Amino acid sequence: MLSFKQAYQEVEEFIAAADFSGNPAELYDPITYSMNLGGKRLRPALLLMAADIFEAEKPAALNAALGIEVFHNFTLVHDDIMDEAPLRRGKDTVYKKWNRDIAILSGDVMFVKAIDFFLKLHPAQQLADVLRVFNKTAAEVCDGQQMDMNFETQQEVSIADYIQMIELKTAVLLAAALKIGAMIGGASDEDANHIYEFGRFIGIAFQLQDDYLDAYANPDTFGKIVGGDIIANKKTYLLLEAFNLANTSQLAELNDCINGKFEDEEKVKRVKSIYNQLTIPELSKQKMKTYFDQGMASLAKVSLPQEKKQALVDIAEELMYRAV
Amino acid sequence: MLSFKQAYQEVEEFIAAADFSGNPAELYDPITYSMNLGGKRLRPALLLMAADIFEAEKPAALNAALGIEVFHNFTLVHDDIMDEAPLRRGKDTVYKKWNRDIAILSGDVMFVKAIDFFLKLHPAQQLADVLRVFNKTAAEVCDGQQMDMNFETQQEVSIADYIQMIELKTAVLLAAALKIGAMIGGASDEDANHIYEFGRFIGIAFQLQDDYLDAYANPDTFGKIVGGDIIANKKTYLLLEAFNLANTSQLAELNDCINGKFEDEEKVKRVKSIYNQLTIPELSKQKMKTYFDQGMASLAKVSLPQEKKQALVDIAEELMYRAV
Repeated sequence: MLSFKQAYQEVEEFIAAADFSGNPAELYDPITYSMNLGGKRLRPALLLMAADIFEAEKPAALNAALGIEVFHNFTLVHDDIMDEAPLRRGKDTVYKKWNRDIAILSGDVMFVKAIDFFLKLHPAQQLADVLRVFNKTAAEVCDGQQMDMNFETQQEVSIADYIQMIELKTAVLLAAALKIGAMIGGASDEDANHIYEFGRFIGIAFQLQDDYLDAYANPDTFGKIVGGDIIANKKTYLLLEAFNLANTSQLAELNDCINGKFEDEEKVKRVKSIYNQLTIPELSKQKMKTYFDQGMASLAKVSLPQEKKQALVDIAEELMYRAV
Repeated sequence: MLSFKQAYQEVEEFIAAADFSGNPAELYDPITYSMNLGGKRLRPALLLMAADIFEAEKPAALNAALGIEVFHNFTLVHDDIMDEAPLRRGKDTVYKKWNRDIAILSGDVMFVKAIDFFLKLHPAQQLADVLRVFNKTAAEVCDGQQMDMNFETQQEVSIADYIQMIELKTAVLLAAALKIGAMIGGASDEDANHIYEFGRFIGIAFQLQDDYLDAYANPDTFGKIVGGDIIANKKTYLLLEAFNLANTSQLAELNDCINGKFEDEEKVKRVKSIYNQLTIPELSKQKMKTYFDQGMASLAKVSLPQEKKQALVDIAEELMYRAV
């Protein structure tokens, strides 16, 4: 059984050995750069773990894992243009280090390269089945990004809208990674779908946790500024739930905060005070737990002995309770 | 035998019947808009014609044709951002009509949708073979676009560099469309490669002709301003060859023109006068003819009776001599 740590290590080695170079260099250097910025390698490692428990051939699993990771990095390169984000993992984004046009076009090539990795699969029927899952997911990830951008100016965003957005933007790619790993291992359709649902539910839980940590992480260990989402008026689960539950005076203060009445530090303090009054942290943890438990229930339905699935349980729990 | 006109008509009908709608609308409306801007439908029509002469099944050929056309439109949507082009076929570009971020992301979804059309092919082995041709071509088209952008600031651009750029940016997608049509019809590898070479050579010839027409078309029928490339200092075959052949005084005048010494009208007049002195129009036509003839020689190698291939000869000749 492959632990997350082992899977991560295998992904890192495969990426280090991969050659993304090409001509013109302006188009391929950003791919090498982007793929070597590091990161958790969550998606490809989960793919390898799912492949491992279904006893898939390693080279096929590694190629699919890299396809998923290259695709994920493509979305980051294009998202960073849209968000005008200067930094990614502490280093210049492609858009900043080169320029907008190179970020657009080298992103496009990354998408092509992602598909190249899937095209290494065989037999052809498996290649076709896997690409159908991948391609459906690719469209969903774009849909999620567009929803996220729409939310910035959209007046009314419901909790259901928000959950759908994070499902599309984040969760379905985790889910697809797990499913593709299982498919390469020859899992039944039922098992492949159960492991997909596991990924989808824990993906939603992880994103809810990200929202929570952005406001409530320990600032000494968080690695970025606590309250960044609050400062940016980001419509997270926390803020949307607060708007749902606030009384008239809390609503007025929330609106004052959003409309720029206070400096950043004071704004974070006031919004968190309202969150605390409304028990948003507890509601948030409950919500995470609901999705997490649904994920675990889906994993339990996968028709393999519990010990085979333990590494997936372990990493899900580790990620879920890392800082809560 | 399918004429180009008939193939065009079939493509138009298939596009009119296709449904590109989806949610969020911001992401899918630009796809419908872009696909309905019109255009020559050269690539999908050539694919249908190649499929027809190899007696491919029509639904498969139509799906692949639409995949090629959606991909082509994706490249236009992203290119228009990079070129900051306000108009495409006389209407607002996606980037102008919506905004940059929507153009990036709806372009990305168009790429996904292009692959969706190929994923409808079967059996799986054909799907895999076709996608490998398509995906290799997709990377090459991006390479060509990057080379084109590099040329804007690159001091030394050789004729060979330029031919490589137009081959990648334009010709290989025509070539791949023809090859994929042939593959769907079950053509042998040899025939598929010959028809690819036909497309590649005539694609280069067409682009050289575009360069020529930009400076020498009849202004009454050209539909856009004659001399646009000269005004924009675009490093076309004409300009690069002129730099190769110019004597000292001609070189000095060319440089004056490029460095903005004259108003647009005067600049076009002076550059064209140098072109004429250096017999660039004739050299250009010779160059076109060389590639065109190589294309015809490749088509001749396709192991089918001449009458089967006549429609491809007809459209190639029609396009080649449309305005020369």
